[in-house]
Amino acid sequence: MRIAIDAMGGDNAPECNVEGALAAAAEWSDIEIVLVGDEARLGPLLKTKPSNVTVRHAGDVIGSDEEPVKAVRRKKDSSMVVAGRMVREGEADAMISSGNTGALMTTGLLVVGRMEGIERPALAPMIPTLDDVGVLALDLGANMDAKPQHLAQYALIGSIYRNKVHGIAKPRVGLLNVGAEPGKGNELTKEAYPLLEALQGIHFVGNVEARDVLTGSCDVLVCDGFAGNILLKTLEGTAGAMFSLLKEQFSKSLKTKLGAAILMPELRSLKGKMDYKEHGGAPLLGLSGLVVKGHGSSDGNAVKNAVRQARIALKADLVPSISKEISGK
Amino acid sequence: MRIAIDAMGGDNAPECNVEGALAAAAEWSDIEIVLVGDEARLGPLLKTKPSNVTVRHAGDVIGSDEEPVKAVRRKKDSSMVVAGRMVREGEADAMISSGNTGALMTTGLLVVGRMEGIERPALAPMIPTLDDVGVLALDLGANMDAKPQHLAQYALIGSIYRNKVHGIAKPRVGLLNVGAEPGKGNELTKEAYPLLEALQGIHFVGNVEARDVLTGSCDVLVCDGFAGNILLKTLEGTAGAMFSLLKEQFSKSLKTKLGAAILMPELRSLKGKMDYKEHGGAPLLGLSGLVVKGHGSSDGNAVKNAVRQARIALKADLVPSISKEISGK
Repeated sequence: MRIAIDAMGGDNAPECNVEGALAAAAEWSDIEIVLVGDEARLGPLLKTKPSNVTVRHAGDVIGSDEEPVKAVRRKKDSSMVVAGRMVREGEADAMISSGNTGALMTTGLLVVGRMEGIERPALAPMIPTLDDVGVLALDLGANMDAKPQHLAQYALIGSIYRNKVHGIAKPRVGLLNVGAEPGKGNELTKEAYPLLEALQGIHFVGNVEARDVLTGSCDVLVCDGFAGNILLKTLEGTAGAMFSLLKEQFSKSLKTKLGAAILMPELRSLKGKMDYKEHGGAPLLGLSGLVVKGHGSSDGNAVKNAVRQARIALKADLVPSISKEISGK
Repeated sequence: MRIAIDAMGGDNAPECNVEGALAAAAEWSDIEIVLVGDEARLGPLLKTKPSNVTVRHAGDVIGSDEEPVKAVRRKKDSSMVVAGRMVREGEADAMISSGNTGALMTTGLLVVGRMEGIERPALAPMIPTLDDVGVLALDLGANMDAKPQHLAQYALIGSIYRNKVHGIAKPRVGLLNVGAEPGKGNELTKEAYPLLEALQGIHFVGNVEARDVLTGSCDVLVCDGFAGNILLKTLEGTAGAMFSLLKEQFSKSLKTKLGAAILMPELRSLKGKMDYKEHGGAPLLGLSGLVVKGHGSSDGNAVKNAVRQARIALKADLVPSISKEISGK
């Protein structure tokens, strides 16, 4: 298995990517990692280079603020686009990037290519849940104006992912909606509901309200990219705001500081639970190859986790399984 | 000023409504409160009845699980519909209900009636923010499939509300979206953006991401009812989940229990900040009369706060001001 890492992508690049690559290569001897990026910058970071880590030079970088489609079209020698080309041409089995999210989705569509039979690929991160199991939510930003049949495809490919990568025999699929009853929602969810109900091969558990997502009421959460983005960013924003408030409250006096010191391990553990970095990368599902998006603020550990995820998906034949289910090929 | 309270609406009805009414009547002598509901049940709760509290008998009740439109059409003698009729016929200046939300929105539309020039009324609760100021978000559930021009009307009526009721001279209006840049979003927000930019009489500050809502980056947040519901319920769900986790972590051992005991006042204060009951009711804006929705789990204090809000809105001529701005009448 060969995994290409966009070494120049992410806020902490290239250091985090090199660190994660080295840790992953040391842990799993059945993978080869190709760090794609500027040789001159990567060389000095690779003082010890294990035999299953190589560098592929790419002279250009797509910045985090660049307009995605323009950047991908123009910067053919950027680390992200080169990694995508490696996947398309079979030189790598998967690619991982923590760079510009829009550009990565564009690279997925234009460079790696859509899977036959899939209208819209979906970005599918894990959202942490209280029971520590997590829910795979899709789409979270690849497709802003989804149609009911897109949501049905998300249900199918999300179920295959949870089954193949996480070993869940019969993943429960929920539709993100404003009420539990079947008739609730906007035009999109009202039309998608009967499609999901009729879909063979998935275990549809009905509508799921946003406030019940964290209690783990489903394994796959289906939504359009706009609603999904609102859900995920509200979750991040609320968790962040509450930690700020806790910090502020707990540093009010000597007494509260003492209380907070006693509870420090528990507060850290809570923060870990609400932390996206620990939940690895988000696959872009529905492409003809495996693409995993890391969080922009990924550190070495997050990059290593993304490699772990890609390795499991490759070992489980994720992409061919989805393709077989979607187009019968 | 006469304010009708749907005495039978809400999980804690009728007790919470009577308690809130009595507290409000005692505090503000310039209001008259009419408790609308079953005399036989209200009588015993009104051992001391101040001169500015009366009862209007209504023999029926709309349950929290009833189908809204059917219930409002059939139950003409329900406490909610009778209160709505009082507003329409000028017998009351405002109504407050903590009952079935869908039924209240239907009562607003079918009984109280839309304001001329308004296509879709909006439900507009305050979302708590870190700076304790809060943001008025609309629409949060009245209209699931909004059009760009509806969002522009929300911007206008939300601005008037913040100005009249909260005294903000130039309320900042934000558009809930998936990115800060003007070109971001789904079809709805992309089309609404230029309308909001061109709208006279509002102070548009651009797109607001869901994670920035809690930091108080705007005074009025405009969104369609579906996205707004996802935002609010994710916020509630995340805050609730974090308090559960804190509780679980903090009761792990004697040591953590001690730490938690020391921090109890700070934890309570945090919970208060994230608590909807303390933020009063949500007005239904765009109707020809004032309708305020209380939280289903309202207690007496929440009902009193809803009365406070209605009183301020009436004193500030809210509904006539909106009407003047919308239709020039």
